[in-house]
Parts: sequence; C-alpha cells; structure tokens
Amino acid sequence: MFEVDIKKNLADKAELVNGKIDGILSQWTGIQPKLNEAIKYVLAAPGKRVRAALVLLCCELVSGKVNDDALNAATSIEMMHCSSLIHDDLPAMDDDDFRRGRPSCHKAFDEATAILAGDALMIMAFETFARNMSTSQKAAEMVKILAQAAGPAGMIAGQMDDLEAENSKPDAQKLESIHINKTAKMFQASTSLGAVAGGADEKQKQCLAEYGLNLGLAFQVADDILDVVSDTNTLGKTAGKDSIQGKVTYPALFGLEESRKRSEKIVSQAIENLSSFGEKAQILRALAFEIINRTK
Amino acid sequence: MFEVDIKKNLADKAELVNGKIDGILSQWTGIQPKLNEAIKYVLAAPGKRVRAALVLLCCELVSGKVNDDALNAATSIEMMHCSSLIHDDLPAMDDDDFRRGRPSCHKAFDEATAILAGDALMIMAFETFARNMSTSQKAAEMVKILAQAAGPAGMIAGQMDDLEAENSKPDAQKLESIHINKTAKMFQASTSLGAVAGGADEKQKQCLAEYGLNLGLAFQVADDILDVVSDTNTLGKTAGKDSIQGKVTYPALFGLEESRKRSEKIVSQAIENLSSFGEKAQILRALAFEIINRTK
Repeated sequence: MFEVDIKKNLADKAELVNGKIDGILSQWTGIQPKLNEAIKYVLAAPGKRVRAALVLLCCELVSGKVNDDALNAATSIEMMHCSSLIHDDLPAMDDDDFRRGRPSCHKAFDEATAILAGDALMIMAFETFARNMSTSQKAAEMVKILAQAAGPAGMIAGQMDDLEAENSKPDAQKLESIHINKTAKMFQASTSLGAVAGGADEKQKQCLAEYGLNLGLAFQVADDILDVVSDTNTLGKTAGKDSIQGKVTYPALFGLEESRKRSEKIVSQAIENLSSFGEKAQILRALAFEIINRTK
Repeated sequence: MFEVDIKKNLADKAELVNGKIDGILSQWTGIQPKLNEAIKYVLAAPGKRVRAALVLLCCELVSGKVNDDALNAATSIEMMHCSSLIHDDLPAMDDDDFRRGRPSCHKAFDEATAILAGDALMIMAFETFARNMSTSQKAAEMVKILAQAAGPAGMIAGQMDDLEAENSKPDAQKLESIHINKTAKMFQASTSLGAVAGGADEKQKQCLAEYGLNLGLAFQVADDILDVVSDTNTLGKTAGKDSIQGKVTYPALFGLEESRKRSEKIVSQAIENLSSFGEKAQILRALAFEIINRTK
C-alpha cells in the first residue's frame, strides 16, 4: 500500500467541481433572477462535495483521468443533492433553519423560493446531462442512473419513509432500508456516473456500484453518530436534531459503540468491492476510511 | 376544409394516455407506498390531457400514426405538469385547496407528502424518457426539450415571476413573459416532443414548436378569462382566485373584451404556423379554436 493524501485529494476535486459549477451557472441563460440568486446561494455554499468527488475518482480509476463528462456528471449530482437539501429543510419537512453553517434556503429567501429553487435544481441536474455529454448514449444512461437513485424508489422514498418513521418503534431492517434509499443510492449513483463517464466495462460498473452503495451506507451511519457526538458549529447544521425529532437512527437503535462497529463493517465490505482494481483504487479505500473518521 | 370532431379526438387521445399512464405506474416497482398513493391520486385525476394529446397529435401529423415513443413522452409531460400543479397549490405558493374538482394533494395527504410527490413526478418524467425511448438519441433530445421548458428559464421561472408579480402594477410585456414561461413553453415542449417521437425534420420541428408556443399563450389568456367568467364547479378549481390574490392577468390589464380579441389573434398566428402541413393539420387547427372556446 502506498500513502495517499485523501484530504488533499478531496480538496483538489472539490475545487475542480466548484470551478465547473461556476462555469455552468455563468453560461446558463434566462434563469429567473431571484431563483438564480437562491440557486447560487445553495449550490455554491461550502459543501464537502463528497458525491462529486466520487464521480471524478471513479472516472479516474477506470480511464486514468478526469474528463469533461465526469465534471458535468459531478455537477449534476451536486445539483440533485442540493435540491434535496433545500426541500428537506422546509418547515413541512425536517424544518431546519441551518445548513452548511448558514441559514437554510427558505430562511435566507422564503418558502416559495425554496420550493421552486429545489425544483429548478432537480430539473437542471437532468438538463446538464442532456446539454453537455459527449454522446447521447452516455446522457441517456446517466439520466436513468440519477433518476433511479433520486426518485420515488430511491432518495425520495427514503425521505418519505424517514418522515413516516418519526417516533415509530425502531426496527433494524426498516432503518437500513431508509439509509439505503435516503443516502446510499445517491452515493451509488455517483460512483456509477463516474464509471459511465470513464467508459467502464460491465464488471467495473458492477463493482463500483456496490462500493458506492456500501460507502453511502457507512456515510449515513457516521452521519447519525455525528448528530449525537458533535456540535452545531462543527457540523454546520443543527446537531442533536435526530433525537429531538424522534428520528430512527443507528445510535438510537444500537447505541454508539455498536453503531461504530457497524460502520466499520460496512466500510470493510466497500473495500472488498474494490479488490479487482488493485493498487489503483487505493484512493477510494482511503476515502472509505475518511468517511467514517470525519468530524463533520 | 373537412370536418373534424375535435372533442371526440381529444377524448380518444386522453383515453390512450390514461391507459399508458396506468401501465407505466403498474410496472414501476419500488415506489414508496404513501408516495405511490399520492402520485396516483394526482396523475390519474380526471384532467383534460391537452399537453399529452398535443404530443400524440404532432407525432401523428409527421409520421401518420401514434407510436410508443409518443405515448411515453405524453406520459412524461403529464407527470411534469402534475408535479407543477402539486407544488403550485402548496400553502407557501398559490395556496389552493381545490384542483380538478377534488382536494389538492396537500389537503388529501399532507404538505410533506405533496412536496415529495411533486419531486417524485418531476424525476419520473425524466426517467420515463431514459427507460422507454426507442433510441438514446431520442431520449437525450427529449430530456433537453422538457428540461428547458420546465426549468428555471421556463415554467419554474414563470411560477416565480407570477408570485413576485402579485399586487404589483401590471405591465403588458411582463405579463406576456410570465405567460410564455409559465404555460406556453410546456405546450411548446409537447408539440416538440411529438415531433421528435414522429421523426420530424428540422423545418417541421420549427413550425410545430412555434405552433405550440402560440397555442400555450392562447390557452393561458383563455385561462385568465375563465377565472373571471366561470364558477368553481365548472372549473374544478377555485374560480375568481386571480383577482383575490392580486395576480397580473390579461383581463385585469386589458378587460375581458380586449383579452378575447388578443386570444383570437394568437390563435390566428398558431394556425399560420401550420400552413406548410396543409389539410393534414386540420385537427390541430380545430384544437386551437377549441382552446379558446372551452368552458373549463
């Protein structure tokens, strides 16, 4: 094993993606002014860009370099992710006034603007594929990947289940299904998009899809743990909220220690999914450990 | 000119589309149960299916028949349209408890479910292209058409402008821009999707896009007039609401008589856009007149 500087690599990838996002937004004509402001406020907010980085890293893994299709797909997944954050924070949903260290979209603007900015980003995510991909085939494949991950059998299902499960009796199977839908499928979409951008073969696509799903699951368990052990300033969003809202979480169900063990077990599985890639995938292995060791 | 029974034709097209919608929904696995209920409640509600019918009619015009690509595209445009209705009716938006003669989605369910069902339908609209089109090229082209029409430089821009313009001093140019964005671009998308489904050439695409835009504009002016002259029972949604909410409308700006003249002028333009198609386009001409003569 050679050493990889995962923090530096992620920071470099985030910078690449931020540049691409700025470029795409500045060329996008005709966006309604207030919406444009709200979209920029959310999409350009200081985020970790983990999903976007995954797209780039997987493209790099299978093709040796980051290409423009990957940068566009990375932008698209961030648009969809931001859309879900905006709607998730709405009063009728998780009702959170605080996101990424700043007022949520509906607090910085108003509820109607937040609803429409979320809608806009969702549509822009798909338009980005259709506008910018090098081939129609890649565009259509990517639309399908993102839609399946984000739609009513994916992320949106997870959000709905999450709301319905509030104050219900926790159940391990239900909890895992919520985590998979709400979070892991979008991670899986990220690795899959990177694989398509890089021209992966079917076996590579399969391995990276499985890696992405496990990584996302580990990320969500870590997120639940951070909500318990961290504070609002460090997190950039309201800490301790899961318990106040009666959310079903791993720590609530199994306790902190068992949750940590669980996240480590999932990370081991993610690392196994990479075995066929050998040393080239070292950075993705480091990322898996980073996911559960992060503090925000 | 030969006689065409536009009402019967529209009813037949609506039946075709309703069948396709049922088929697509019944094959769509994994939709979260509560979302599934809300999606069916809205998407299967008795609607006029004008946009869907336009897709089918334009495909028929250029290719001689309705094909499966057109039926899928018609379903997609109805999904996007329903998504916008759900979000438009939310309390933070137009705050309407009544739609298509039944309680709005957030009244029949709750606000969170309505937000997520709208999101789900938006994503499903794009997934329908990616899942079901006969070629990737058609799928990618259709994603672009729908996204441009519905996104932050289209329908969503119109919704935002519409909210911002409430109780502001009316201005003819601004009003037309709101109508074009809010309504006409989705009509344009419908005719364009039908053209792509039927394999139209560039000139045909151009003519049908212009026809669609004019038709949509006439539809919206007629809608504004109906809000003034009709009643809630006939409309299936709350009548007289534009004026109560201080909306900028044609009747508010120019009066009813002038608005009727304006809608007739736009319909004439729509009919001119069809000149190169000759007799074959008779049904689309009849549809243009039907749009401004409708009572709901």
